[in-house]
Amino acid sequence: MFNDLFPPGVQHALDLAGIFVFATAGALLAVRKNFDVFGIAVLALVTALGGGLFRDLVIGAVPPAAFGELSFFVTPLIAAGIVFFLHPEVQRINRAINVFDAAGLALFCVTGTTKAYAYGLGLTASAALGVATAVGGGVLRDVLVNEVPSLLRDREMYAVPALVGSTMVALCIAFEMLNPLTSGIAVVTTFLLRLLAIRFHWRAPLAWNRRSSVSEETP
Amino acid sequence: MFNDLFPPGVQHALDLAGIFVFATAGALLAVRKNFDVFGIAVLALVTALGGGLFRDLVIGAVPPAAFGELSFFVTPLIAAGIVFFLHPEVQRINRAINVFDAAGLALFCVTGTTKAYAYGLGLTASAALGVATAVGGGVLRDVLVNEVPSLLRDREMYAVPALVGSTMVALCIAFEMLNPLTSGIAVVTTFLLRLLAIRFHWRAPLAWNRRSSVSEETP
Amino acid sequence: MFNDLFPPGVQHALDLAGIFVFATAGALLAVRKNFDVFGIAVLALVTALGGGLFRDLVIGAVPPAAFGELSFFVTPLIAAGIVFFLHPEVQRINRAINVFDAAGLALFCVTGTTKAYAYGLGLTASAALGVATAVGGGVLRDVLVNEVPSLLRDREMYAVPALVGSTMVALCIAFEMLNPLTSGIAVVTTFLLRLLAIRFHWRAPLAWNRRSSVSEETP
Repeated sequence: MFNDLFPPGVQHALDLAGIFVFATAGALLAVRKNFDVFGIAVLALVTALGGGLFRDLVIGAVPPAAFGELSFFVTPLIAAGIVFFLHPEVQRINRAINVFDAAGLALFCVTGTTKAYAYGLGLTASAALGVATAVGGGVLRDVLVNEVPSLLRDREMYAVPALVGSTMVALCIAFEMLNPLTSGIAVVTTFLLRLLAIRFHWRAPLAWNRRSSVSEETP
Repeated sequence: MFNDLFPPGVQHALDLAGIFVFATAGALLAVRKNFDVFGIAVLALVTALGGGLFRDLVIGAVPPAAFGELSFFVTPLIAAGIVFFLHPEVQRINRAINVFDAAGLALFCVTGTTKAYAYGLGLTASAALGVATAVGGGVLRDVLVNEVPSLLRDREMYAVPALVGSTMVALCIAFEMLNPLTSGIAVVTTFLLRLLAIRFHWRAPLAWNRRSSVSEETP
Repeated sequence: MFNDLFPPGVQHALDLAGIFVFATAGALLAVRKNFDVFGIAVLALVTALGGGLFRDLVIGAVPPAAFGELSFFVTPLIAAGIVFFLHPEVQRINRAINVFDAAGLALFCVTGTTKAYAYGLGLTASAALGVATAVGGGVLRDVLVNEVPSLLRDREMYAVPALVGSTMVALCIAFEMLNPLTSGIAVVTTFLLRLLAIRFHWRAPLAWNRRSSVSEETP
């Protein structure tokens, strides 16, 4: 069923890198929320493994890599340990979360799309699942700490870079051009797009004729 | 494994209708919350596909229809586009959400129960999974926007119409009377029950001896 | 695939006991939140079945026991009915939730680890999934009622007793000493550890150098 698009080592290295940076973003958020050492570890694990777990359940890769690969489980704990001792000042913690989160988004949309296609999904579905893999861990993290996920709330187009990255990978697959180089370009493009969107406050439009004078919400 | 209870076209049409109305309800809530165009699309997708995704994972239909059928993926985006341009005034948005949500509830409890039984679950489990399919998307939507789901909070018996509809379908299967007509009756009954419950404020009882004078919660 | 570690009756009895106590904890929380009778039933079902459902999806036990076993479905409804009529005074409800939740935690970390190993996971992964099974229902319950899960917020080390219990079971499996007696010891140890942690306010450390004078959170 699984036809290798990458040398397995490359896929594994990209996966571990994505897990590490997402775990760091999760652990930093836990520090900001004043959680204790176990809360930090849990939030690191959930952020790092949530997206891939969802992807593996959808494509029927059972047991999911999160429970099958010991390195996938240990890496978030290492990231949590580093953050526990070396987290930045609270004032700079949000910026650090954004950078690590952007890196995770970039790595996971590429590996997610690739793995989904390798398990037999169509190109559109693979790209969609790649986006879901990339945003899934962050959504789970935000739901657990009781915030509306960046995916929905963030006016700086959280999903768009992932969408671009996944689409690039899907096109590379379609034209049989997927290799470590083109994948790397997709990762870097996604990462930079996300950082630029945050830096320059790129805005997506609100609903047509929705006057911004209307109060945020009165349910 | 799959024994057709319906002509496939009927099942597919009911599924698409349910996806469309749930997506509309999700997109309207996103407009009320002042999310941007991508937030509207995401909430439409999650509301429309969440319940069916859960059902397909439980019955082992992998990959789930949400990722296997392109039409299931495109329909919520169309609904999101329509809502983006044509949403009602904010004051009337809640009523519109309720009507579309009731229609989704009605369609999904019928198709959910039918599909669960077709994949080999027992009658009780099929009805239970039908209810879960019907309420799942709405629960996910409410969790994402950081509200307690209607399923729990709504004093107007959110789950009861779905329970009635699923039970009607399960009984029809038991007596070999399931066909497009009886399914249609189950859909309409569920839809009307939900609207009547909202309109006339039908109330389910609180816990025995729970004095309402007690403050809502003091954790 | 499934190699019996226990006589099936023992596993089933432990499962039902865990489902019953978790359902009671969920129903009590629903009463505290002033949900109606259907909200109480739903929260009992979700709390009792959520963790096991997650475990079964991860190990590929489809359909999950929650939908395959009628007794797993009826037990939470019985617990909800009992709580509906016999819930304690609101002032004492939190303590009751803690005791029932601790019992569920203890029972589920043992049965979760055992079932995961029986389905072919490694020892570390089995222990991890045992913890996830034990905490999963409570996390889902807390997310649904819009609270940050005890797992993250609770300074009294919510996850640690489950970790101890799951590790004990994994070690028993490794040394071929798993039997009803050693499992019972693991259950009791976990239960007592959790109650002691609550009673004596055992605290896990916050992040290094995180001055507690810093305000809780300023996102």
